[in-house]
Amino acid sequence: MRDDTDGLASAGPEFLNRLEAALPGRVTAPTDAYLTEARGRYTGLAAAVVRPHSTEEMARVVRLAAEARVGIVPYAGGTGLVGGQTAQGPAVPILVSVEKMDRIVEVNTADNVAQVEAGAILSIIHDKVEDHDRLFPLWLASQGSARIGGLLATNAGGVQVLRYGSARDLCLGLEVVMADGTVWNGLKRLRKDNTGYDLRHLMIGSEGTLGIITGATLKLTPKPVDTATALVSVAGPQAAIALLNVVRAHLGETISAFELMHRQGLEFLAEHLPQIAQPFAHRPEWSVLIEVGGGAEARMQERLETALMVGAEEGLVSDALIAQSDTQSRAFWDVREHIPEANRKVGAVSNHDISVPVSAVPEFVERGGPAIAAIDPSLRINAFGHLGDGNLHYNVFPAPGRTRAEYEERRSEIKAVVHDLVHALGGSVSAEHGIGRMKVDDLERYSDPAKLTAMRAIKAALDPLGIMNPGALFRG
Amino acid sequence: MRDDTDGLASAGPEFLNRLEAALPGRVTAPTDAYLTEARGRYTGLAAAVVRPHSTEEMARVVRLAAEARVGIVPYAGGTGLVGGQTAQGPAVPILVSVEKMDRIVEVNTADNVAQVEAGAILSIIHDKVEDHDRLFPLWLASQGSARIGGLLATNAGGVQVLRYGSARDLCLGLEVVMADGTVWNGLKRLRKDNTGYDLRHLMIGSEGTLGIITGATLKLTPKPVDTATALVSVAGPQAAIALLNVVRAHLGETISAFELMHRQGLEFLAEHLPQIAQPFAHRPEWSVLIEVGGGAEARMQERLETALMVGAEEGLVSDALIAQSDTQSRAFWDVREHIPEANRKVGAVSNHDISVPVSAVPEFVERGGPAIAAIDPSLRINAFGHLGDGNLHYNVFPAPGRTRAEYEERRSEIKAVVHDLVHALGGSVSAEHGIGRMKVDDLERYSDPAKLTAMRAIKAALDPLGIMNPGALFRG
Repeated sequence: MRDDTDGLASAGPEFLNRLEAALPGRVTAPTDAYLTEARGRYTGLAAAVVRPHSTEEMARVVRLAAEARVGIVPYAGGTGLVGGQTAQGPAVPILVSVEKMDRIVEVNTADNVAQVEAGAILSIIHDKVEDHDRLFPLWLASQGSARIGGLLATNAGGVQVLRYGSARDLCLGLEVVMADGTVWNGLKRLRKDNTGYDLRHLMIGSEGTLGIITGATLKLTPKPVDTATALVSVAGPQAAIALLNVVRAHLGETISAFELMHRQGLEFLAEHLPQIAQPFAHRPEWSVLIEVGGGAEARMQERLETALMVGAEEGLVSDALIAQSDTQSRAFWDVREHIPEANRKVGAVSNHDISVPVSAVPEFVERGGPAIAAIDPSLRINAFGHLGDGNLHYNVFPAPGRTRAEYEERRSEIKAVVHDLVHALGGSVSAEHGIGRMKVDDLERYSDPAKLTAMRAIKAALDPLGIMNPGALFRG
Repeated sequence: MRDDTDGLASAGPEFLNRLEAALPGRVTAPTDAYLTEARGRYTGLAAAVVRPHSTEEMARVVRLAAEARVGIVPYAGGTGLVGGQTAQGPAVPILVSVEKMDRIVEVNTADNVAQVEAGAILSIIHDKVEDHDRLFPLWLASQGSARIGGLLATNAGGVQVLRYGSARDLCLGLEVVMADGTVWNGLKRLRKDNTGYDLRHLMIGSEGTLGIITGATLKLTPKPVDTATALVSVAGPQAAIALLNVVRAHLGETISAFELMHRQGLEFLAEHLPQIAQPFAHRPEWSVLIEVGGGAEARMQERLETALMVGAEEGLVSDALIAQSDTQSRAFWDVREHIPEANRKVGAVSNHDISVPVSAVPEFVERGGPAIAAIDPSLRINAFGHLGDGNLHYNVFPAPGRTRAEYEERRSEIKAVVHDLVHALGGSVSAEHGIGRMKVDDLERYSDPAKLTAMRAIKAALDPLGIMNPGALFRG
């Protein structure tokens, strides 16, 4: 995809001087921590890191960059996995971090909203609203360092999307510095507002290519006070989906998580993180972690037991463990939550964050295995994730004793096979993580042409100079 | 607001001949039913009504209109209340109805989705998915004639938004004929898809000004099998909000409706629809209708009783009736659902569809009364609606024995006073109904300038000829 980012200027000394003069003390040299993504896979380019302390300062940065036509890479927690925070040039941009704007401005229990600055760290938001007996249900692995501005810019997901939706569904309002340096104050806290185009949803998920999110109004929910957790062995994805529908019939929308795990993940865990206790005596081929939560006196455990009994009667459940204490529930979650760490220790040849219609998950799994084996039968697959959303993390690993480096040449073939299959099933090659710079080719290859045309037109309309996160989403 | 709709051509005989040749039998003369909105308040302009039978035919219409630069007014159920379906000229457009594209293509219980064409009538969708034991929870007064294309184009709301969200939250994918006649096929049924800008949310609520929705994938939910309904007398909006939080603490997100009613509405009802039984012996100043629903064995009635008891102990509940049968529940709903009809029989001087932050509802009500009385102390106010969303229908009526016509000259003053107050409280002057042609001035007056600039840029980018619903949202 080409857009109008040609003709960007590098941020040279003269520009940086002007920046420093306009924002004394906010401009520093970029360190590796800013330029290299967490896993060390991409290294970015930036002439300086600017850390504004307010929306007004942010707007000043953007106006100066627009004037000089210098690219801006917005930076929040740096936890993105697709290179959205690592610019590649050729023109050298500035990196603008929201970390100094990290206040939780207000938690309002009457409106059930929190107003926060873009730099607020997710886990700190969690803690703060819990003090007010509320839940901000965006829940994901990187929550200890991810910042809300980045989470919204990438429409982050996680384990509770099934119940509460993605980041976009948890946001009532935004404040954004637009590409011309004007500020859109959309920090409303309204549940309903039908006055014109929904800029909020356009900005959310636009990965910093249309403006910089500086603040947000977040939707809070009541904290489920009565919860229940189960670990259930099932015959396969098809049975798991049928079980999900049984649990739904009994527990409605109170299902907070419905996470599928394949035995491969449990084996990686046993090998690389043996300290994590595995509840099942024999590791099942497929299992699901279920969590449900309701209000006072909701009798969740009893009702979940009933649902699982019905599931067992219908032949969907081979074995079921229901947590009898918070400690046991925590132990079940430990299994699920440590799978990514075990994966990293093994070292994947290729990771895929895919979604298909829920009903197509079984076919995806059935066809994916042979397709990968046809490339190299020694490859191992670990499929796990958010079954209720049709979203799997589908990761391909070397044979035992071999390393990812040995498969270097097969990686793009593996990706193409997985992504083609996903596309054939009406799925998405980026369910949660976004496009960033890593998946620009995929976006071009798999998107509907009319959608690409509309995206280019919107980008040109709202960022005519092409300064906002150049190279992300669109080819630089 | 000015946009690039200057230079539109009227749909003359030559253009209509070309249209008829390209789509034989699809072009007819416009009848009053298409040109006059349901309440008879606006009459529109159109040279012809075109009724395509397929997306391909729809695309052909748009291409011909683009070629000739003739305006297109998309038309679905015609139930909109803000003149979005009634063009005013000066150039005479064509009206394009989706009524012949009304199929429910598929109901898929594994994916919990229904795929429908834009002309499908809401109540028919309800019935069809109920046959599959599912719920499509968009629920509003006009559901017997409203069509899904229009409901999505205007992001319709209704009584169950508190629990399930507005139309946009109930839609997973769209098919849209864009303003250049290309077709965006975004009929995905994915719960997660982070590949580029969210065109779906941009199109939803854009009121036909960016393209014509021709199909949608709708999100279905499990049907609550265990429900409970209560009619509760409360001291006022403040107590009602506190009660909402108590009920939330007990019943989590299972609250399907939390509707506030003022005595004025009950009095109108008693006078004009005496056949509607009123459950309370003495009409309370303020009351709320509460409905909750959960899965099997959720013991909703018992838990709602407990919550209301707690509410009573906290002094929030004066009197509470809990429906003991479906018939009684229906009787409670009859009261709420007939208030608009009684209102129409009285004849409002001015209606307002407003939202404020939930916590600001009491202040809005407290300040609204004296502000209206200052204009004319004989005016009567009926405030009712979706308290959980901060969304009130705030309608102003003549004194007993007088007619709306007698207040004609005060109407714009009343509107300004109400809207200014809403704006001062951080609210929206169109919570559910949209902007259409009626509220273009309000949009300009109350919107953030950066938002208006972005809206104009998006309109120009996606509909450069200005042919899509000219005069709606933007000044013609």
